[in-house]
Amino acid sequence: MARTHYFDPDTVHYRWSKHYEPALTIRSGDTVVFETREVSDGQIGPDSDASALDAFDWDRIYPLCGPVAVEDAEPGDILEVEMLDIQTRGWGWTASIPGTGLLPEDFPNAHLKIFDLTNGDYTFFRHDIAIPIEPFFGTTGVCPDGEEETAVMPPGPFGGNLDTRHITKGSILRLPVQVPGALFSCGDAHAAQGDGEVCVTGIECPMFAAMRFNLVKTNGGRTLPAPQFMTPGPLTPKVDAGGWYATMGIGPDLMQATKDSVRAMIDHISDAYEMSPEDAYLLCSLAVDLKISEVVDAPNWIVSSYLPFSIFRTPIG
Amino acid sequence: MARTHYFDPDTVHYRWSKHYEPALTIRSGDTVVFETREVSDGQIGPDSDASALDAFDWDRIYPLCGPVAVEDAEPGDILEVEMLDIQTRGWGWTASIPGTGLLPEDFPNAHLKIFDLTNGDYTFFRHDIAIPIEPFFGTTGVCPDGEEETAVMPPGPFGGNLDTRHITKGSILRLPVQVPGALFSCGDAHAAQGDGEVCVTGIECPMFAAMRFNLVKTNGGRTLPAPQFMTPGPLTPKVDAGGWYATMGIGPDLMQATKDSVRAMIDHISDAYEMSPEDAYLLCSLAVDLKISEVVDAPNWIVSSYLPFSIFRTPIG
Repeated sequence: MARTHYFDPDTVHYRWSKHYEPALTIRSGDTVVFETREVSDGQIGPDSDASALDAFDWDRIYPLCGPVAVEDAEPGDILEVEMLDIQTRGWGWTASIPGTGLLPEDFPNAHLKIFDLTNGDYTFFRHDIAIPIEPFFGTTGVCPDGEEETAVMPPGPFGGNLDTRHITKGSILRLPVQVPGALFSCGDAHAAQGDGEVCVTGIECPMFAAMRFNLVKTNGGRTLPAPQFMTPGPLTPKVDAGGWYATMGIGPDLMQATKDSVRAMIDHISDAYEMSPEDAYLLCSLAVDLKISEVVDAPNWIVSSYLPFSIFRTPIG
Repeated sequence: MARTHYFDPDTVHYRWSKHYEPALTIRSGDTVVFETREVSDGQIGPDSDASALDAFDWDRIYPLCGPVAVEDAEPGDILEVEMLDIQTRGWGWTASIPGTGLLPEDFPNAHLKIFDLTNGDYTFFRHDIAIPIEPFFGTTGVCPDGEEETAVMPPGPFGGNLDTRHITKGSILRLPVQVPGALFSCGDAHAAQGDGEVCVTGIECPMFAAMRFNLVKTNGGRTLPAPQFMTPGPLTPKVDAGGWYATMGIGPDLMQATKDSVRAMIDHISDAYEMSPEDAYLLCSLAVDLKISEVVDAPNWIVSSYLPFSIFRTPIG
């Protein structure tokens, strides 16, 4: 009885609101196929340069496909979203954008890179640096409650702009329903991103996906305080075996320790691989993972940035 | 010409001070073999129960082997420590200790578990939960500068109590020298620990190790702002392939997001695996990894706790 629905790719919304009419209504067990736009909604294309960022219309960021209503979903229920398939569609971009990201004070100028994703398995950051393509959706969520429209940028207990790299193909995301019908939407897909997304973008790209939805009725019982998810296999299978280089930030504030750790990694990459700090910042956003190494040795905590050696290749010719 | 030195296991110190006499002086390229005591310095043994924590003498915590002076080391140089071998020695313990850890308000009572490490590859947390043994040193550092003795608990740019799980066998730790001779010390070894060490202990245990030291002279050039390290292979090879379950904490403060994420994981483990919250807290400290999933979607950041499925086993009989 489960059906497969093909979501109209021209139906998008740019903010969250429980008052938007559902674009599609499905039942638990159904599958939906999405073709989503990249996050700038066409303001950046395969031939763009950094000047495209100067005229950025922020009201057109985050074109999301949705809302998808799920029959019988009530607040407190859990909507499970199984990522049956996720595939890139040819190209993508990443950028640092003035006034955003982890280190806006260090990087005041716009910097853009365009990526060829036609290979599907990896893309070259430089002729000797290959970033594995591990696609996921930056934004997947149920609609937050509240009378006012709200921005997509900050995530919340409803999910949304999670930007969490490991919710890849085969993963199951569990979202706590906030409003009747759940009103699921998705977009803002990434071909690659490190834990942290430090420059504010992954490889932003249009995406194809098939997702299967399963509604777990809680009947007023225990729900989830925030999203949870499970992955079916290893986290970084394409680079893990080659080893890692890590830089530490140590101090009493986790945010400052994060900045110190990433700054040390940018210095390391710039020095070891002869790269501009601007490019190293983008590379960190795409391939470096942030871990909290310890959070109990008062008063100093440690955040570490991990760079996989395997992305660096010796050119053949 | 490189030599191997056997460090006297009865020579320990409990604080950092550049005024302590070196217990051993080595040259760059030399190897030192250490046999270190567990972090309580014998206050907890294989037959202890939680009452041992009531009478804890905190002045005897962190018995470190050292100081090892390195000839020609000057402030600003980089001391590389290669972990040639690290092996557990039969048993270990983990505990939550009142007033310490990430969640002292949730866990006011002392809770202790003793582990049999005689197998060397894994140890049972419960008859159906096997924790892989992946030994490393919680504390490895060069001596901080300053006239006063300082506590071992907080780490710093000099290293020290890093509690970073991936500095295992084969890794190379790079430490920025702070005082003439470097004055390296180590101890506080762990048989296992997750990123974060949330309950304040890993599996604390006596340890055998061989470390090779290499001094990089910087001659006043660029040094390191904090420790850095490299691993020769994958980060969590014994559990990665089996997939992961993750819980999120989302909000404007990274520490609060960390607490929310770990609390959600404790609830998940308690519920899914029929375990007391006290045991689930210890299990998080030993096997759950904290990642900063995104730190740029203002004003809300995400910290995720990752639990590997592979530690859960179906008993044979």
